[in-house]
Formats: sequence, C-alpha cells, structure tokens
Amino acid sequence: MPTVKAAVLTAFQQPLEIREYPAIQEVGAGEALVRVEMAGICGTDVHLWLGQLAIPLPVIMGHETAGRIERLGAGIEKDWRGNPLSLGDRVTWASSIVCGECYYCRLKRQPTRCVSRKAYGISYCADQAPHLRGGYAERILLRAGTAIFRIPDDLPSESVVGAGCALVTGIHGFERAPVEWGDIVVVQGTGPVGLAAIALARHAGAARVIAIGGPPHRLELARNFGADATIDVAAIPSAADRRRAVLDETGPFGADYAVECVGHPDAVTEGIDLCRDGARYLVLGQYADAGNISFNPHAITRKQLQLIGSWGFEPRHVDRAITLLAGTHLKDLFASEVTHKFALADANKALDTVRRWQSGKAVLVPDAGGAGVANHGA
Amino acid sequence: MPTVKAAVLTAFQQPLEIREYPAIQEVGAGEALVRVEMAGICGTDVHLWLGQLAIPLPVIMGHETAGRIERLGAGIEKDWRGNPLSLGDRVTWASSIVCGECYYCRLKRQPTRCVSRKAYGISYCADQAPHLRGGYAERILLRAGTAIFRIPDDLPSESVVGAGCALVTGIHGFERAPVEWGDIVVVQGTGPVGLAAIALARHAGAARVIAIGGPPHRLELARNFGADATIDVAAIPSAADRRRAVLDETGPFGADYAVECVGHPDAVTEGIDLCRDGARYLVLGQYADAGNISFNPHAITRKQLQLIGSWGFEPRHVDRAITLLAGTHLKDLFASEVTHKFALADANKALDTVRRWQSGKAVLVPDAGGAGVANHGA
Amino acid sequence: MPTVKAAVLTAFQQPLEIREYPAIQEVGAGEALVRVEMAGICGTDVHLWLGQLAIPLPVIMGHETAGRIERLGAGIEKDWRGNPLSLGDRVTWASSIVCGECYYCRLKRQPTRCVSRKAYGISYCADQAPHLRGGYAERILLRAGTAIFRIPDDLPSESVVGAGCALVTGIHGFERAPVEWGDIVVVQGTGPVGLAAIALARHAGAARVIAIGGPPHRLELARNFGADATIDVAAIPSAADRRRAVLDETGPFGADYAVECVGHPDAVTEGIDLCRDGARYLVLGQYADAGNISFNPHAITRKQLQLIGSWGFEPRHVDRAITLLAGTHLKDLFASEVTHKFALADANKALDTVRRWQSGKAVLVPDAGGAGVANHGA
Amino acid sequence: MPTVKAAVLTAFQQPLEIREYPAIQEVGAGEALVRVEMAGICGTDVHLWLGQLAIPLPVIMGHETAGRIERLGAGIEKDWRGNPLSLGDRVTWASSIVCGECYYCRLKRQPTRCVSRKAYGISYCADQAPHLRGGYAERILLRAGTAIFRIPDDLPSESVVGAGCALVTGIHGFERAPVEWGDIVVVQGTGPVGLAAIALARHAGAARVIAIGGPPHRLELARNFGADATIDVAAIPSAADRRRAVLDETGPFGADYAVECVGHPDAVTEGIDLCRDGARYLVLGQYADAGNISFNPHAITRKQLQLIGSWGFEPRHVDRAITLLAGTHLKDLFASEVTHKFALADANKALDTVRRWQSGKAVLVPDAGGAGVANHGA
Repeated sequence: MPTVKAAVLTAFQQPLEIREYPAIQEVGAGEALVRVEMAGICGTDVHLWLGQLAIPLPVIMGHETAGRIERLGAGIEKDWRGNPLSLGDRVTWASSIVCGECYYCRLKRQPTRCVSRKAYGISYCADQAPHLRGGYAERILLRAGTAIFRIPDDLPSESVVGAGCALVTGIHGFERAPVEWGDIVVVQGTGPVGLAAIALARHAGAARVIAIGGPPHRLELARNFGADATIDVAAIPSAADRRRAVLDETGPFGADYAVECVGHPDAVTEGIDLCRDGARYLVLGQYADAGNISFNPHAITRKQLQLIGSWGFEPRHVDRAITLLAGTHLKDLFASEVTHKFALADANKALDTVRRWQSGKAVLVPDAGGAGVANHGA
Repeated sequence: MPTVKAAVLTAFQQPLEIREYPAIQEVGAGEALVRVEMAGICGTDVHLWLGQLAIPLPVIMGHETAGRIERLGAGIEKDWRGNPLSLGDRVTWASSIVCGECYYCRLKRQPTRCVSRKAYGISYCADQAPHLRGGYAERILLRAGTAIFRIPDDLPSESVVGAGCALVTGIHGFERAPVEWGDIVVVQGTGPVGLAAIALARHAGAARVIAIGGPPHRLELARNFGADATIDVAAIPSAADRRRAVLDETGPFGADYAVECVGHPDAVTEGIDLCRDGARYLVLGQYADAGNISFNPHAITRKQLQLIGSWGFEPRHVDRAITLLAGTHLKDLFASEVTHKFALADANKALDTVRRWQSGKAVLVPDAGGAGVANHGA
Repeated sequence: MPTVKAAVLTAFQQPLEIREYPAIQEVGAGEALVRVEMAGICGTDVHLWLGQLAIPLPVIMGHETAGRIERLGAGIEKDWRGNPLSLGDRVTWASSIVCGECYYCRLKRQPTRCVSRKAYGISYCADQAPHLRGGYAERILLRAGTAIFRIPDDLPSESVVGAGCALVTGIHGFERAPVEWGDIVVVQGTGPVGLAAIALARHAGAARVIAIGGPPHRLELARNFGADATIDVAAIPSAADRRRAVLDETGPFGADYAVECVGHPDAVTEGIDLCRDGARYLVLGQYADAGNISFNPHAITRKQLQLIGSWGFEPRHVDRAITLLAGTHLKDLFASEVTHKFALADANKALDTVRRWQSGKAVLVPDAGGAGVANHGA
Repeated sequence: MPTVKAAVLTAFQQPLEIREYPAIQEVGAGEALVRVEMAGICGTDVHLWLGQLAIPLPVIMGHETAGRIERLGAGIEKDWRGNPLSLGDRVTWASSIVCGECYYCRLKRQPTRCVSRKAYGISYCADQAPHLRGGYAERILLRAGTAIFRIPDDLPSESVVGAGCALVTGIHGFERAPVEWGDIVVVQGTGPVGLAAIALARHAGAARVIAIGGPPHRLELARNFGADATIDVAAIPSAADRRRAVLDETGPFGADYAVECVGHPDAVTEGIDLCRDGARYLVLGQYADAGNISFNPHAITRKQLQLIGSWGFEPRHVDRAITLLAGTHLKDLFASEVTHKFALADANKALDTVRRWQSGKAVLVPDAGGAGVANHGA
C-alpha cells in the first residue's frame, strides 16, 4: 500500500518524526489532494513546537503551502476566484475554514473569530484519518470548502510561500487600521510580519518607514523591503534610547502610525511611547499569550490613541495578496526572503533555523531533492 | 477699592481659602467679564485638590461655569455661534484656549492636544493679575479668544452646569468612537461622565445600555439617564462576578461597545473582558496618571479590539451639547443631576460632597444666598 | 390532488388571476414549506404590475411575507440566527438568495449586487415547478439557503410585514450612509421607505426630521413615525417653494443629511438643493429606471456633497430589523402602518389600494377569512 | 514714484493689459510683500478670462505663485508650519483666506466653503488699493492671515508651481474620497488635475491606473505620472467605445474608484458607467457651472455608488503637498510638467498656450528675462 511521508510533531520541544500515512486513493466531493511543493516554516510553528498554544498532538504542521493538484473531488471545478481548476495546477489556499453561520461569521462579519475555525497545520490531529492536514508532508488533502487559489504562472511559489501568512495577516491588519499616504510609520519587528508591514506601509504611500528589529541580516532585508531607517535592538538595548533614535527619524512628536510585529508583550508599551498623540497603533503580533506586562492606560486617554487588534485573515486577503505579489516588485522581494530550503527529512533543521533567526524565510521542499535544497538542508 | 471674592486652592489637600482680589474695572479688547452664577464641582477638581495633577498654586478652580456678562471688551459682539452678545446675557464657555498654530492644532487637527493649551480653573496662577481665571469666584475674566456661548433663555443653568465638562467630554469621545444604533453598550462608571455616556449612547440608538457603578443613588440616576440594567460594584465586588452579570445582560459574547468612565486603571482590564471580539472600547476616564496595572496585550490582537482614547473637547462640542440639551428631554435630566447647591463660602463642603460621592452634581452659587443654596450649604 | 391557490400576475397591467398549483407533498434537503399568514403589497409590486421591471411572467408576487412552517427539509434545524426551528413556528425570511461566490459576493462583499441574485415574488416564473415562490399564495416553498428568521412570539406579524422590505432597505441604506446624532435630516417621500427612514433617523439621534410627501393621511403617519415637520407636496407644488419651506425648518444652509425615498428621478435634483454643503445624500428610492432628468453636476463639486446609493439588503439587515422591532416602540408603530387587510381573492383590490396611495400598508391574509380581512376586502 | 507691473484682465475675452500700480512702501501688521518669481497659468484662469465665473474686473489673475519675501509686517515671524521666516526666503501660500468663524468654518469644519472666502488672483478688484493681489505681477502683497509656506531649498519653484492648485485640490479630494491600495482607478482627464490624480492614486497604492484624455503629448505625461494605460478621447470619440476600452483594462465590472478631472458635465455620466457597483466616484472637476446634462439617477441606487465632491483646499493640504513633493520623485515629475515659461509681457501668449492645450504647464516669470523665458515667450 502506497504511503505518504510527513514530518510530525508528536511531543512539544521534541524533534519532529518522519511518519508515513496511507496515501489518499479517493477524494470526496469538494475535496482536493495536493502534492506539496513548498511549505513555509512560520514563526508560529516554533511557538507550536514549544507548546505555547493548545493543539492536538500529534500534528502535521505547515499552514503556508504551495503545491500541485493531484486529484479533484466532485463539484470542484473552479478556484475561489472563479478560475477553472485542473489537475496539475499549482495552487495555494487559505489555511482556515470557518463555519459561516455563527455569531461572528454572520452577525459581526468577522469570520477570523469564527467559533469553530480550524486551520491546516494547526488544528487537526494527525492520528485521525485522513491524517494529511498539514504542509510538512508530501501530500495534503484539502477539505471541501477550502478557499483554493490557482497561482498565476509567472508568480513563483517562493513569492507565495515567502510572503506566507505574514503578508495576509498584514493585509487584514492594514484593512482594520489603514495606513494613510503621507503617514510616518514605525514598524516594530523585522520578522516576516514586520517585513510584510514595511512593504505594505510603503505600498500605501507612507512618507517614511522606520523599522526596529534585528539581527543585522534582517535589518538589511527591512531596508530592501522599504524601510528608510532601521534600528537594531541589539545595538540599542534600552527602550528609552530606542525612543530617542526613533524620534530622530519621525520628528519630535512621534509616529502617525505604528505597528507591533514583535510578539513580546513589552513591545506594546514601547510602541505607545513611539506614537504621536492621536496616532493609530496596530497591535498585530500578540498572537500567543505571552503573559502580562506593567502598563499605564492613562496614555490611551491622554494621547487619544487608537489601539487596533487584528487576528488572522480571510480568503479575500489571500486574493489581495496574490494580486499584489503578481503585479508588483513585491514578487521578487518576497521570493528573496526565502533564503533556506530543506528536504522533508531535514524538517528539524529547518525549524531550528527559524528558531535561531538565522534565515530570511526557511521552507520545506517535500518532494524535491535538488541542489537548492541540499544547499541548506545538508 | 472694590474686590471680588474667590475660593482659592492654596495648598494641596488643605481647605480652600476665601480670598479677595481687585475687581476688574476695565476689560481689554476681546475680553469679557462675567458674573458667576453657577460653578460646577467636577471630579477633576477633587484630583486637583489631592495634588494628582501638576498645576500652579494658588489656583481658583472651577471650569464648568455659567454666568452673566458684565463687561465686554472692544470687538466682541458675537458669541462663538455668531449670536449677538450683550451685557446681561447668560453665557457659558469652553474651558480651554488653544494656540491654533501648533503641530496638533494645525497639522493634526487635534486642538485638544495643543502644546500650549490653558484651561480656566486649572492652568492659571491666581497670584498673577488679573487673578480671576476660575469659576469658584464671584467674577471671572475671560480672555480674548475664549469660545463664549450665549445660553438659550429656556435652558436653565442647572442643565448646562449639571452636564458640565462630562457631557462635552463624552460628545468628543463618541465622535472619535461612535456608538452605532443597535449596539449593546456597557458603561463603566456612574459618575458625571458615566451618566453622560449613558445618555449619549441611548440617544445614538444603543439597543441596550448596561451601567456598572454605584453607590445606589447614582445607579438610580443611571437608570433615569437610560441604563437598562445597572450593576452595583459594591454588591458585586469581584470583577469575574461582574463579568458574569454583564454577560447575562449582553449575551454570551459581550458588548459591542464599552466605555470606561471610571478613572481607576484596573477598569481597563475589566472593560476589555466585557467586550465581544471586534468591539470598540472607548477609554474616556483615564484623565489622571493613576499608575500602572498588570495587563495582557494578547487580548487586543486575539479579540481584534479597538481601544480608543479621547481627551477634553473643543468649542464645537460645547455647541453640540447646548443644542442637544436645549432640544431634548436631556435638558431636564441633566438639571436633575444638580442635587446640591452651595454658597461660595461653603466651597469646602461642596468639594467634600463630591469627594464622598454624596451628590449627583454639586455646584457653587457664588452670588446668591437663597434658600436653595442654604439647603445644602448650611 | 390537493392544490394551493395563488394570485398570479399573468400579464402586465391586467388583473391578477387566482390559479391553483399542485400542493407540495415533499420538501427537499434544506427546503421549508410555509403556510402564508400575511403578505405585504410593496410599492415595487405596483411597478412590477405596470411592467416597469424585467421579470418572467407569470409570476406570483409577494416578497414581504410571514407564515408558519409546515414542513422542513432534511438538515434544516435552525434559523439564520441559530435558533431552533420547528413545525408551526412563525417565520419570515430574506427575500433574496445570492450565490456567495461571485465577484460581488466574495471580492467586494456586496452580495446585494450578486450577479445571480434571485428574489421571491419577483424572479421566479410560476409556470415552472415547484411554482410556489411568492407570497401572494396560500403556501410558499423556500429554497435551501434561504435566510429564515423565527419571529419572536411577542412580535406581531403586522409589525414584520408592516415594516416590510422598506425597513430593511432603510437599514442597509443607513449602514452605507449613517445618520449621525445631531444631524438635521430631510426625508423625501412618505411611502413605506420614507416612514422607515424617518423612524431610523429618529432612532439614530437626528436632531430634527423634516418629511416631504403626502397625501395628508401619510403625513400624519410621518409625524407618528417621528417627523418634526411635514411638507405636503400637493399643498406646495413648486420645488422652489418647498425648498423655502424646508430651509425654514433646517436653517438657512439646509440639511446635514437627506434621504430620497420617492422614486421619481426629479426628486434627486430637489434633494441636492435641500442639502447644506458637505451633506450626505442617500439616494435610496431610485429602484426603477424611470428615465433621465436634467441635472447639473456642478453642485456635487461645489457643495462637496456625498451622494450614496444602496440596493436591497442582506440577511443581517433582517436580523437587525427584527431586533429593532422587538425591542422598541417601533413594534407598534410599524404594526399601525398596516391599515388594510385583504383575502387572497381580493388581491386586485389590495394592489389597487396601494397604487392609489389609499392605505398605510395593505396586506394579503391568504389563509384567513375573518372580520378584519372582510373590513377592507369586501 | 516706483511702480509695479501687472498683467491685468480688464474685460472678458480681451487681451490682458500690462498696467502699473504704485509700489508698496510699507506693509501692515501680519502682511508680507513678495517678489513674484513664478506664477502658474491655471486652467481656471482661462475660465475666468472667458467670463464663466463671476469676478470683479479688473483683476490681476494668478493663484499659483512662488516668490521671495521682500518685506514682512509686524508680528509675522514664522510660516504656517512654524518655520522662521526671513527677508529673501522663497515662499508659496494658500490662495484663499477664510473667516474662521462662520457656519462652515466652525461648525462643519469645511473652511473651503467659508461664506466669505477670498482668493488671490480671483476675488480682488485691482482698482482698489493695495491692488497687488494676484500672481501675474512683479509683486504681490499678502494679507495678514495668509498661510505662507517657506519652500525647502532643494525644492525648485518649478515643482511647486508645476503642481499648482491641481495637486492640492487633488489631495483634498483624495482625503474626502480615499483611494485604497489595490484599487483599480480610472482618471478622467489629463490636464493638471488629472495628472495630479494619477500621481496621487499611484502613490496611494492603486493596483492599476487608467487615464482618459489627450492630446497625445498629455497622454505621454499621464504615463510618466504613473498611468498604466491611456485612452485618447480624440482617437476614440464615442463614450460607448471608450467604455469598452476602459473595461478591457479594468476587467468586466469596471473601476473600484473613478475621479472626474475633466470639467465637462457629460464626463459625470460617462464616469458612472466606468464604475463597478459600489465604487467611489470623486467628482473633482466640475468647478464651473457648465450647464445641465441628461442624467439617470437610477444608477446611483442600483449600483450603490458613492459620488463625492470636493472643493478647493485648505492650508494643511499645501503642507502635505510640499512634503510630498520634497520627499519623493514627484518633485521632478511635477517640475517636468512646466514646459513653457513666459515673461510678464507675454502673459497673453501664456494664456493662449494653456487655452489651446499646447503646454504641460505654462508659467509666467515676471521678474526674469533669461533664456528659458525667451524660449517660449518670444
């Protein structure tokens, strides 16, 4: 019986195991079987691996994936945009499926807060058939109702996976808290979300983008993505000193717009201090519950700030991301973020690279054994 | 030489002193001398008295005032709305004057954050001529540029001073974070700002207004002002229990809109817990820097909240307040909030009444000695 | 074989015919068979009868309907809000079904412009099985995917059908162009949409509502619904004179907000003249293509107006309407709008009543023969 | 007695006359005397010359001007941004002064509709002292209260005058009707306002900009300014054919955003046809009352459009324009729009060049006689 290999998280903080699952022979109505060509290692995967979020083990991680359609179930003839879908098409998909019927889906039009949302690579126990619900595998079986997007021929998978969930998360966040042209923007963090935020702020006409992050190779990426100035948190370890450095760039009142893409709760306090009165502050990076901070709410009233949160994304944000990537220089920019490729067997090395901030973006190439992969995976 | 009596804060946490200042004989261009008929005791005055804000001593407090014009300087012929202004007219005014030229006034159109804003009853040292810059006095001299409003004849001073700076602060806050009709609204606090928020939420079509506060006489006011349900913080001292009580009223997801009118920093944490995902949360009451709290910013991202601050108000909010009071049942409602009247000599009793939450709204009536005043002041 | 009676539009401008269709014996998955208790005669039905919109004949009109569930197909256990649904429940439903997949449904989140939207009572040819797709009938068969709403027990069908599609259309329009509290609002038209607009403007805190319309019995309704002033188009036939009358009520600059609920294209020119500079103008009533007018676009630029259109409504607007009706005095107000009830056999009389503006709201009561019906239908 | 030369419009449709006025010897408090270095010929000047707007004759036209400060009145030490202002500084200024006190200035915060707004080059009769209130002159005397902006040293006057009132008008319009990143934008018209709209749409992240206009040399400018596609109205004279050409570029539904920068009223009808349902349509060019058109308002309702007007601009839009020009490649782009320079004596030639659409932007250089001027003016 043919099998499919997957890199499986079986216990927190333990090496992923390569396991084999029965190959999918038949697909149900609306389902799609996809041969995985590239699976991004998201920073969230590190948090999952560390056990910081409640997930069912074992799990096949991987929620940023591109692949080729191998089988299509009955009734699935078009992608989410209405483009015809055929065997062999290269596709990506929204990582979550929502119910469409609950209080948040219907009444509040906030499907990202659907009460029964499930995400590939996160919410599915790999012990349960059909097992293949994550990107760290040779194949993934997409449920009926998944928002699938055919990738335009001239858009490399590196662009799509390099942009990953960071770009669509940023697009959603910027929808909830728009950057206005002419804004002076501070981006806290130069991980994938930070880089996406830099690119989006630039794209929306920010007058000036100041990025705070590190290490140096990521600050260089930040400048490539459009930051006018970068501040190295290692070089300036004091928040008060960083504030002075930021104000040198923004002018004495601070930023019109700040976006938190760090994840450490302390970043929120620092970010508020970087805002001018009346600024918008998008708190985009507090995905994990990393505990409490000491916080003074007086600043919200006195500075008449807007603090805006945003969670996940919807299929229409994937649509916008693909259009954006396909039509602008961001195609190359995000592709360039993919600095490390690994074979499936080297998933632990890949994860480690991300954990140690050594890569731009690290990806798995489950079905390939070419030179590009060997470069980093060997 | 004729003199003017004033109740003066000379030292923090010490009784106000009645002092006499030289009467104003001549007024300069654009100035107006006003005989004070009624001066509200604002909760902020208690904070000033306690020394919680940096102000120059001695100071004549009183920033919620109505009176009659006694002298008008050259060139001042109309009120802010363009109505003709004459000696004897009953007026009120915006308590602050802004520069109109700074970064916040001009470029960011946020004059409430003007870098050189000065407020009657707060920012002026009473030792400096012309001394009379606060409402706790028989006369007040308004500077050129003050936004003066003639009070419509059929609008009692009790309505205007009863509404006080709470209503205009609320109007500004609700402008920055509008209540939409049909919203389920939670109001934290039943002081003057809380009552104004209840009235405004109701007026804007809130489907349901739940107020949290106390003591019982203020919860009764809250119901009069339009709260559908009230929760007594003394009866339910635990925030977790209060949350359950609120969710019983809002439904299991929480409020569409919450507004903090408490002033204690802990209220912000509690308020966030009362919000449904995607809610707007107006942080309106953190006027004083009351210190840090333990706070988890994860909720902002996960619940994709909007936290919105608002500071002070502009003349146009006074305009809206007067129109609102004059044209609706709120005229009587806010007048009914004035439960205690005191003579100027009893300013300390008045302040104490507010400090102990014994009154609806306490006011000074500097120039009167009638029964109404004696009732409470004696 | 049992049959179901329906009043059918077989030819434009000809009397409706009572026809009989095979009774529905079995309902498919997701479908619901409803015994019609009350069907509103909408002004649009008159336009349909006149042949002013392209529809397939014959058609069973009726898109504002309440009834009781007689059969439920497999898999339909809850209403749109998640309330359990049982045989005998009194329900109403959104009149349209959209595809959920097209450019407008998905990418632009404007399902009211779905490219394949179909509406009960309008879009279905009665010759095709299962025939029963309109409210002017003893039964209606609801397709799978219909947004069904259980009507709360204490909310009379008269409220729901009296509000009809006018209220939900208004709710959608006011969502796209919100009335802000304190706005001075002019409502053009006192038909059902105009009355709904008056009620909604009042509910959202309008400072003043001026209604233009007629005849006198509808102006009285307008005042009941909350208009502060009414202007009779028959009494003041000149638009220039009406403008003077309106400005007497609004003040010399005109309305902050105007809403067109007339349907005659000339109303748009008149409405623009009633707006102050910078006003919002909701063009809500131009449902039929009633031809061109002479128009000067200079006013849009010079007055820096916002003209906003809105089409139809979504299920969530029905949800808001039911909540609004159930929770406020609007329940009684809209019920009072139902002034005429007719038996199915008297459908032509009912239509004629609406056409001649003789009723508040006229309804069919297909399954009843009681006194109330005979009152008007006899 | 020294005199100042000016090109004066003394009668509509007649050649401007060179007249001499007494030189200004003393300037009052707050006033500034400026030596004109460059004065733009705006399309509106052609409309003024034709007599299409009500203005007092004779008038010194010219409302897009840069020059150097020659005298400063008492009390004027800073420019609008707070920068120190000295003799010899190169400056530009907002062309209008508003009262700051009327219904529109105060209550509605729409100073562009101030009831007593006056504009240099338009509203001042040249017969009345001090005469020099327009840019077509060697000197201009700026009233107290004029919003003066020091031009950054590295920003050429060509950029500022090339951008002219078109850019600031566009900035105001785009503030009232923002382009969102990813929008597909159609710009009607390739005059100065059209070019500014193209540049701003591009800057705000438009996915695609399609410009309709002509003649060919302006379409080339349009492409330089960022249009992805241009449509020549002379080559495609039929609106229906142009619509097909536009939809080829936008996709079958039309534009997300359209902006009218043409001025002919028929452009509005055409623009509506180019919009997808739910689009925003900024009607920016209908400055003159050019008469009525045949118009069908049904489209506003059915397509649920937003039509938004915008008039003039405020000082803060000049601030944004200067920042934008100084900080981006738009500096060079708008400077390149200045294709023709004329001496003051050749003002009629300059006006004629604009009238015949022969230039990018034509300017007067009142005080210079250099080669660049001779090139076009001779």
